[in-house]
Amino acid sequence: MLPRLVITLGDVAGIGPEVAVRAWCDPALHAVCKPTLIGDLGTLQRAVQLLGARCKVAEVADPDDATSSPDRIDCVQATALELGQLSFGRVSAAAGRAAYGFLCRAIDLTLAHAAEGIVTLPLHKEGLHAAALYYPGHTEILAERTGTPRYAMALVLPRSLCTGYSERGPEGALAVTHVTLHLALREVFVRLQPEAILEKLELTDRMLRRLLGRRPRLGVCGLNPHASDGGLFGDEEARLIAPAVQQARDLGLDVTGPWPSDTLFVRAVAGEFDGVVAMYHDQGHIAVKLLAGYRAVNVTLGLPIVRTSVAHGTAYDIAGKGVADHQGLLEAARVAAVLARRTDDHSLSPAARGHAGQP
Amino acid sequence: MLPRLVITLGDVAGIGPEVAVRAWCDPALHAVCKPTLIGDLGTLQRAVQLLGARCKVAEVADPDDATSSPDRIDCVQATALELGQLSFGRVSAAAGRAAYGFLCRAIDLTLAHAAEGIVTLPLHKEGLHAAALYYPGHTEILAERTGTPRYAMALVLPRSLCTGYSERGPEGALAVTHVTLHLALREVFVRLQPEAILEKLELTDRMLRRLLGRRPRLGVCGLNPHASDGGLFGDEEARLIAPAVQQARDLGLDVTGPWPSDTLFVRAVAGEFDGVVAMYHDQGHIAVKLLAGYRAVNVTLGLPIVRTSVAHGTAYDIAGKGVADHQGLLEAARVAAVLARRTDDHSLSPAARGHAGQP
Repeated sequence: MLPRLVITLGDVAGIGPEVAVRAWCDPALHAVCKPTLIGDLGTLQRAVQLLGARCKVAEVADPDDATSSPDRIDCVQATALELGQLSFGRVSAAAGRAAYGFLCRAIDLTLAHAAEGIVTLPLHKEGLHAAALYYPGHTEILAERTGTPRYAMALVLPRSLCTGYSERGPEGALAVTHVTLHLALREVFVRLQPEAILEKLELTDRMLRRLLGRRPRLGVCGLNPHASDGGLFGDEEARLIAPAVQQARDLGLDVTGPWPSDTLFVRAVAGEFDGVVAMYHDQGHIAVKLLAGYRAVNVTLGLPIVRTSVAHGTAYDIAGKGVADHQGLLEAARVAAVLARRTDDHSLSPAARGHAGQP
Repeated sequence: MLPRLVITLGDVAGIGPEVAVRAWCDPALHAVCKPTLIGDLGTLQRAVQLLGARCKVAEVADPDDATSSPDRIDCVQATALELGQLSFGRVSAAAGRAAYGFLCRAIDLTLAHAAEGIVTLPLHKEGLHAAALYYPGHTEILAERTGTPRYAMALVLPRSLCTGYSERGPEGALAVTHVTLHLALREVFVRLQPEAILEKLELTDRMLRRLLGRRPRLGVCGLNPHASDGGLFGDEEARLIAPAVQQARDLGLDVTGPWPSDTLFVRAVAGEFDGVVAMYHDQGHIAVKLLAGYRAVNVTLGLPIVRTSVAHGTAYDIAGKGVADHQGLLEAARVAAVLARRTDDHSLSPAARGHAGQP
């Protein structure tokens, strides 16, 4: 039986509605999951007209009522706000508040086992702020509402986008996780502690075990060029990274490193590693963007529920023009479906083994 | 008329000799240049036998005597050392001293206008050291012997290796230059000064003008994630990088930035930029390695002569097995040939306009 996935519509002034409609009309979506949109019927109807799509939009109360048909978009009406008149490409408090509401409804449904996973379309941070919702993004809302203290974001690249790909189904993937993200490079030297590295290793291992159905092989980036070349260029490898790698190995993880980051990504793409843990934002993002562009899938690690996201944003500049691509959403649904199908352990959190999944 | 290129054999215990023989037997080499090897006849003869190649090895006194034929390897005997009995894959003072001698002879021939450019096969740093030659690599020897105070290394990626490639001949290329290279990431904050950034921009512009025959479009990486996102994550963009970009623009260069490095490389690959200036080693090398692997071409900037190199090393682990690939050498010869053909200005150094080219 295919997993029930709830797809949140995100900021309706962005490309979310048209991407959702395009994906719905594509049989590939229904081949991997039983999808239900959590959003607003009016804006979906507008997107259907915009694209000249031949499907209808129908309200459902619950994912169990969804029909999973390319001809009928099943949507839970999750806002009381009037959104049909909003202009594309404009920040608004209404769109921000509605996007927050869609996400909260999706989280609650999933925590209540009415769905096996969440796939999110992009929201707009300024829209949230205009609605006095001061979250940096989806992840913090998910962490708060599920009571998750330790979480992280992984970028999962479909193997089909990597060189040397051989057909292995949706499970073939390379995940990249970052120890630090949105902070000045100078601050990395303060935040890079063995505990933080070990936490990311455990979270990445846990997710990849579910995604691949086996123990993943993880490679850890060095911080310095040539991973310091034996101490010639810096000492963070010996002082901070190697101890974390050793601790992870002591816990039974298949981890090696620190490796020179420039060759580590090449080796990972060639199939030597299933996951790479990068030390800072650009180290991982340069590789991911070159390899997968906006077809990478964002997976939140550490939550008691499955959640994936497209890697692109609201793309206000092209919203309402009917040109947005839906491949990113298909990839996000594929990854969520695989994670949701492996129900041997409901938790993605290494700290919460046996945890009930409720905050 | 094709340019005369001298190809140095490098460390003869590495893959240099077999790569040279393979390249010689490939008509593609002779289509772009009139090549002469600077090396040792005995080790070349050994490589010919190893590969079962049907060409002969002939001694020439000067590049003008070269015949440029896949059937005959024209070699200037540039060492008096007996190298024929050296084991593959072993560091030795003899191989180190010989490699140094090959390079010096190539430099002298090129400075004397007996050749239009140098292409180097790899040497081994430990071999140099064993011979009491304490240079980190080729570049410093070239800089010293040509009297060049300001120099840099660019990695040139053939466009044929980039996504979205459309046939544009050997001129289609993307160059990546680094402001800092082999030092601890922590030290980057000390070394990153506007003067250093401006120098690399000028050197990169100069080389690309020759390579492309027009004013190149350069993009400059930020240092911090999202190029600091307007000062949210660090101030080096506003304090150090933007002023250097402005100075370069005042000098007439087509430069923009600082840009977020993760998306800058994607844009460059898509054709928006001809050159990218990276702030530190891994920032540029992660992208170059993923895009071109060992087929990137190393170009020394700032010298009064043309010099390119393969991006791979001596590969002692596979030396003598006859499995080494010669595509990197072909690419290096192609780039050198284009640079050498544009003889409107003999200098690659922005500081040496009108300079005679002799140290």
